[in-house]
Amino acid sequence: MGIDIGGTKVLGGVVDSAGRALVRERRDTPGRDPAAVEDVVAELVGRFAAEYDIHAVGVGAAGFVDASRSTVLFAPHLAWRDEPVRDALMSRLKVPVVVDNDANTAALAESKFGSGAGHRFVLCVTLGTGIGGALVMDNRVYRGANGMAGEFGHMQVVPDGHRCQCGNRGCWEEYASGNALVRDARELVLNGSPVAHHLREVGGADASGLTGPLVTEAARGGDPLATELLADMGRWLGVGLANMTAAFDPGCIVIGGGVSEAGELLLEPTREAFSRQLVGRGYRAEPPILAAALGPDAGFIGAAEMARSAARRSRRTSRRTSRLRRARAARWRARLDERA
Amino acid sequence: MGIDIGGTKVLGGVVDSAGRALVRERRDTPGRDPAAVEDVVAELVGRFAAEYDIHAVGVGAAGFVDASRSTVLFAPHLAWRDEPVRDALMSRLKVPVVVDNDANTAALAESKFGSGAGHRFVLCVTLGTGIGGALVMDNRVYRGANGMAGEFGHMQVVPDGHRCQCGNRGCWEEYASGNALVRDARELVLNGSPVAHHLREVGGADASGLTGPLVTEAARGGDPLATELLADMGRWLGVGLANMTAAFDPGCIVIGGGVSEAGELLLEPTREAFSRQLVGRGYRAEPPILAAALGPDAGFIGAAEMARSAARRSRRTSRRTSRLRRARAARWRARLDERA
Repeated sequence: MGIDIGGTKVLGGVVDSAGRALVRERRDTPGRDPAAVEDVVAELVGRFAAEYDIHAVGVGAAGFVDASRSTVLFAPHLAWRDEPVRDALMSRLKVPVVVDNDANTAALAESKFGSGAGHRFVLCVTLGTGIGGALVMDNRVYRGANGMAGEFGHMQVVPDGHRCQCGNRGCWEEYASGNALVRDARELVLNGSPVAHHLREVGGADASGLTGPLVTEAARGGDPLATELLADMGRWLGVGLANMTAAFDPGCIVIGGGVSEAGELLLEPTREAFSRQLVGRGYRAEPPILAAALGPDAGFIGAAEMARSAARRSRRTSRRTSRLRRARAARWRARLDERA
Repeated sequence: MGIDIGGTKVLGGVVDSAGRALVRERRDTPGRDPAAVEDVVAELVGRFAAEYDIHAVGVGAAGFVDASRSTVLFAPHLAWRDEPVRDALMSRLKVPVVVDNDANTAALAESKFGSGAGHRFVLCVTLGTGIGGALVMDNRVYRGANGMAGEFGHMQVVPDGHRCQCGNRGCWEEYASGNALVRDARELVLNGSPVAHHLREVGGADASGLTGPLVTEAARGGDPLATELLADMGRWLGVGLANMTAAFDPGCIVIGGGVSEAGELLLEPTREAFSRQLVGRGYRAEPPILAAALGPDAGFIGAAEMARSAARRSRRTSRRTSRLRRARAARWRARLDERA
């Protein structure tokens, strides 16, 4: 079973070995108290355990998770600090539990069961309020020395550029994310730009009602400014992906997250900028840039898959250990027999 | 034995299993004819084979090498295209040969025997005329889907910045490399800047005599402008390394290549900019930024180590295969005995 704990919702489901969600349930995230969130997880697991044989639970959480995948070090949207989520849940649920960052679990799901299936090196980029993501190699998420790899959104693309929440300026996610899209749309409305008349109708004269989905909807409806804003964002996305490809050389790039709902309105300008910017273009294999296939389920599907393979590994280890023990015991018996 | 084939020199040596160079020899790179280069390699191997038992040869070459590590796809400084270097050398030398990019072989040497020893994830950055490098994980060079990973120098750091040889603008190596250093120094001399008086003395009024080593020497001698130029370069180096750390989370960063000879004049401003720019600073382990330890030997030492482990793997495989064959033969004999 997999559970995806976000800042606003908890999504859980039972997942089979082919990555198919057999059932799913959604709950609101109950405030910021870790114990209350654990209650929700326990309730979901209990609910499904009646019907399914749950033998491991994976949790994807919107936060930094330590390298042993047991503790959420820091989760800004949940106000968690050093929460020993794995042990707390294991003692309640009595099954193996694995915890990881939600961008990691989603990336694993997309690379193994979604758009990246069949590729050994998959770069997953999740476009939400910021940019999340992970590099998946041979169905394993690359974590780096301290489990903090994959902070692609905080690579600087513009010196002295827009100020980012992280404290720096010019981070990639200030140019290619939901936040960036809404910031630019609001700015145009507030500046009284004549091209922004449709967005002003949609979001109000003070632009307070503008959201990413509304801008996307306006672009789908043919509004030229909203289309332009998505194209601007796509260009920055393409430049950043070309940077990542120079460094990582992935076999395929998967774009997920809420903003990716804009589909080709975003991906077409992305691919164009990417092809224009890639080092060695014309002399190398260019990775395809694909839309994610699993939608909002990716987080819990990947969490379930992590739990499944962790449980499989530990079973295999214990089988091997007992086989070695039996063999050693047999040798001892043989020696004792010889001496006797 | 390891051989490092560069645009100007061929460096070869015999290397023991602890990564120590027992002997080394240097030759000029003989023109651009692949066969002439192979002659030099064969001559070096023959020379050492009299005294040492050479059981495998590794070659590091300044070019793109295919994923099977047998063919140099493209080597701008050697004018090679699709050269089947491995097979050509194996048929002459009669020992196993491995070919890889020289930045990869140098990175392996530094991460295993040099400044990165003891770290599982080592980011190596080589500062020459451009920026080369590799990420080494558990003593293996990360190559990506097509063997083209590690082109860190062509990640864009300045939109619409300096034009790069690769065809793009604003590549990292246009801001943090020997080429960048010399370009800025020449520009200051040619503009008649009063602060450039020492560099003008050194490199001539037309700046044609200015080189990277001369700028470094001027900085070592206390020239304020040369010191400033190295500090500017260090700042860009630090920003780029912070970007790489956001994505890769290495345990340690090793800076090698000719320009790194500037030592602390370069590394101090680099570390300062890095610490200022790193995402999550204060909340994470910061990888140390270290000078490379093996100098110009790194390329052939790493090439030798690659050849050693490739030879070891193939021996192990053939031992395992013959063990399996013997076991199968024993089972067949047993069955035949039963039937008899």
